[in-house]
Amino acid sequence: MTLADQPPAAALLFQTLLAHGPLTRAEIGRRTGLSPGAVTKVATPLLTDGWISELGRSTERTQGRPATLMTVRGERARFVGVKITGDELIGALTDLTARPLATARAVLGSRDVGTVVLAVARLVDQLNAEAAPHAPGALHGIGVTISGDVDGHTGTVQYSPFLNWRRVPLAQLVQKATDLPTVIENDVRALTVAEQWFGVGVGLSSFALVTVGAGIGCGISIGGRVVSGAHGVSGEVGHLPVGGTDRVCTCGNTGCVEAVASTQAITEQARRATGDPTLTMDGAVRLAHTGNADVRAVFARAGHALGLALASVANLIGPERIIISGEGVATYDLYEDQIRTTFAARAFGAAADCDLVVRPLPFEEWARGGAAVAAQHVFAPAK
Amino acid sequence: MTLADQPPAAALLFQTLLAHGPLTRAEIGRRTGLSPGAVTKVATPLLTDGWISELGRSTERTQGRPATLMTVRGERARFVGVKITGDELIGALTDLTARPLATARAVLGSRDVGTVVLAVARLVDQLNAEAAPHAPGALHGIGVTISGDVDGHTGTVQYSPFLNWRRVPLAQLVQKATDLPTVIENDVRALTVAEQWFGVGVGLSSFALVTVGAGIGCGISIGGRVVSGAHGVSGEVGHLPVGGTDRVCTCGNTGCVEAVASTQAITEQARRATGDPTLTMDGAVRLAHTGNADVRAVFARAGHALGLALASVANLIGPERIIISGEGVATYDLYEDQIRTTFAARAFGAAADCDLVVRPLPFEEWARGGAAVAAQHVFAPAK
Repeated sequence: MTLADQPPAAALLFQTLLAHGPLTRAEIGRRTGLSPGAVTKVATPLLTDGWISELGRSTERTQGRPATLMTVRGERARFVGVKITGDELIGALTDLTARPLATARAVLGSRDVGTVVLAVARLVDQLNAEAAPHAPGALHGIGVTISGDVDGHTGTVQYSPFLNWRRVPLAQLVQKATDLPTVIENDVRALTVAEQWFGVGVGLSSFALVTVGAGIGCGISIGGRVVSGAHGVSGEVGHLPVGGTDRVCTCGNTGCVEAVASTQAITEQARRATGDPTLTMDGAVRLAHTGNADVRAVFARAGHALGLALASVANLIGPERIIISGEGVATYDLYEDQIRTTFAARAFGAAADCDLVVRPLPFEEWARGGAAVAAQHVFAPAK
Repeated sequence: MTLADQPPAAALLFQTLLAHGPLTRAEIGRRTGLSPGAVTKVATPLLTDGWISELGRSTERTQGRPATLMTVRGERARFVGVKITGDELIGALTDLTARPLATARAVLGSRDVGTVVLAVARLVDQLNAEAAPHAPGALHGIGVTISGDVDGHTGTVQYSPFLNWRRVPLAQLVQKATDLPTVIENDVRALTVAEQWFGVGVGLSSFALVTVGAGIGCGISIGGRVVSGAHGVSGEVGHLPVGGTDRVCTCGNTGCVEAVASTQAITEQARRATGDPTLTMDGAVRLAHTGNADVRAVFARAGHALGLALASVANLIGPERIIISGEGVATYDLYEDQIRTTFAARAFGAAADCDLVVRPLPFEEWARGGAAVAAQHVFAPAK
């Protein structure tokens, strides 16, 4: 039996336990709208097959007896998530609830597709060997994530700028190399899936996750679903046209948030401001921290552009919370004031009530996002 | 019996028939995932109570016999939608499928809340009297729509700039005056609800409806739900910061789309361009049509700002289609080129594949949006 073979009510029960469990049968009924009979009917095969279990006793009593709590059995299934960057692979082996059991990294010597696919397969083997003694069990699937235009439905990387890949049938290639069911997803959307089911997005009606670093991305979750875009594009905050006309973006336009606030853009502007063509991002951060006004102005401009981008997200979709993450949050102190001031000024009416939260998420968390996407294909298959 | 008392599977069956009917039982099963037994079980009370009916025969055959088609009985329930503007009320009485049976307008002598509520009640009575001979039956409910920050959950108009209302418990007031269940909604979102269930949004995975006129608004539908925003604000494209720094918006910021492309903003800019302080919007349109380069530049700038706004919507949520409507589409020829050119340049990657469609919708269609919202509360109640 697989979860995907179960009726929709079983998926609903399972997802409710995943997000809010452990719960009593009565509480499951209240949250799902299922009758007590229906709860029993759909829970029985899940209990029998080990996807959920009964545990402990709640203080709530049903007809005088303590009510049993049901919970998801995380150990029932295991997944590997792999994030591919231009330089390395980051992998995480997790249980069904995206709890990491092992993580590992592998340096990439080449961006050649065949080489990367083989390296992914080796990393999966390595993680499985590491985790096996502590948590024996077969792998259910792999989730590979990568920045760029990724079509999860066909399993094709349409375009990944950092790897310079176009139309690579990555899911199929990794599946062939590993003999395991493989799904792929844009890396920011995958991180959003992980936050939605297992992170700070649990229980929110909507949220956005904005990542700041080499690129500027955004995942959007509304009503428990991550928005994927009818044509595979969504959350492209990096290319919102808010940054003036003097800087040209990698996409060819001027004024994109990324042209002002990406790591590369900040470094370039700091070089120009100081007249030092060898200045690095780390150097720019040091100069800003020692009070260099010109370099501080570069960070302030980046913060202003990011504040406009966050306000645009808030004005359009009105999320309950915006999570700010990515490598860029390491230097968040240099533009936080500007982000918050601009956001407060530009968020329209009650959209300003949206909660802004900074959350550093290392690449191992992004890899865990891939595992969450693979797990989601099991417990919440797309129609 | 009401539809809202039925189990979730009944709502699913009903909504499927509403969007895609008439359908055979087999086709309903395919589209909903319900078993043949479940289709029969949930359809029976709906048939008995007249919400759906069996009609005609499909060419599809089940075990040698022609299959029966099921369809929604639109006449089973009636609703009134009312759009409130600063000057008048526009009302539409419709059936369950938002098909208009009668429409009417009433001029408002005052924006006083009590006066407007009484005028709404009178308009509802008038529409009911007009429609009754042709389609007898009781009204199920009223949907009132208004521009601004409208909290449909509490039934409160938080802020409506055109009426200068703040924190008006409008749903409760209209319900008291009419003795009918009343819901309220932002007018653009209500129009989006109507397009989603009964208009050009039917069957789309996602779409946005952008309205251009006195204000610039946007409704967003994703996965069959209109996005309402966690804090009641969503679709505020009018305040995206894309328009430069020289024009101050009614919201106090510079660069908002509305500060460049609303009817008022275009009129003001055309007055400045021509040096004629008495120029009207109609006058500006005539000058542009006769080739006045300065006034044409004003419309081109508006078109550029609108193109940036549409590209921002496409980049963030990746809708299948964007529908452009509102009073402003009457002058669409004056900025269409600029909208399409800017959109094509700024939509990121495959987001440019989003379909741009112009659709004139008179205020009677907006009133029908209110009826659609009231109907939706019956057939797709929020949890």
